[in-house]
Amino acid sequence: MRVMGVDPGLTRCGVGAVEGRPGAPLSLVAVGVVRTGADEELGARLVGIEAGIERWLDEIRPDAVAVERVFSQHNVRTVMGTAQAAGIAILCAARRGLPVALHTPSEVKAAITGSGTADKKQVGTMVTRLLRLAEMPKPADAADALALAICHVWRGGAQHRLSQALSRATRRNPTR
Amino acid sequence: MRVMGVDPGLTRCGVGAVEGRPGAPLSLVAVGVVRTGADEELGARLVGIEAGIERWLDEIRPDAVAVERVFSQHNVRTVMGTAQAAGIAILCAARRGLPVALHTPSEVKAAITGSGTADKKQVGTMVTRLLRLAEMPKPADAADALALAICHVWRGGAQHRLSQALSRATRRNPTR
Repeated sequence: MRVMGVDPGLTRCGVGAVEGRPGAPLSLVAVGVVRTGADEELGARLVGIEAGIERWLDEIRPDAVAVERVFSQHNVRTVMGTAQAAGIAILCAARRGLPVALHTPSEVKAAITGSGTADKKQVGTMVTRLLRLAEMPKPADAADALALAICHVWRGGAQHRLSQALSRATRRNPTR
Repeated sequence: MRVMGVDPGLTRCGVGAVEGRPGAPLSLVAVGVVRTGADEELGARLVGIEAGIERWLDEIRPDAVAVERVFSQHNVRTVMGTAQAAGIAILCAARRGLPVALHTPSEVKAAITGSGTADKKQVGTMVTRLLRLAEMPKPADAADALALAICHVWRGGAQHRLSQALSRATRRNPTR
């Protein structure tokens, strides 16, 4: 399963893709950042993010896209731009009929490090280790995008196995 | 000047267009709502909003688009969806090279009613009166979209006259 993670942002939108399945080693497909200029108008920035995400989707051809779920408790000054960048990533994926999953920052941290309150460095260290990279991907947005993709491979797989098990149990015991 | 206003929302995205210029009577071009189902996935809803806004832009062919500026102080439960719907309206307009303006709710209320704290009914009443309509446009999102468009005609016009006056003054007195 090839998953593209997106850590949304107007100035830097992290993009990272991994290939893997639960219980097997993961591999890095690609990682980078879509940038737009802080001096550009909002409309031009959103057009730039759409074009950047489209190029990544064309190149990576993922089976699924995982986007960080944005909360209004985040930095109030930037949260609207972050939500809009996330919305455009979701739009681009959904237009292609790709499944889109949203994961919260604490779900991602818990999946990657075992702790929902891990700091950025710990997440970066684990991404580097899990993908057997020579050094930590930079900037942090790129590492976070990979963490999202890894989280989705593992959670998606776990959820898939759980729903398979539930459906087998239901078939055996239809009154459940 | 033909302006299309967008009152963003995931469930109901109000769209309304007016034709006019400052100091002259305004006329209604079209008004309506782009709806998506609350039971649909977020990705499908954003695709639906993009398609709806594109159809309105094709039909109305506005000179400018005015979108309500979303703040994180709004209803926390729905603000992320509202911000994403706004982002998609801005994206659609910017992709066509149309100028996009953001106006705050209090700027719109002040422009239409004279008070930045007017309620929805007062805004609806003034929209109905200014466009000489037989009855108030419904739902409120549609009336709010028209209010945004009217606000933009008036504010855009005032800003335009101000910049013309400044540029004339600068030509007369280039050391300013």
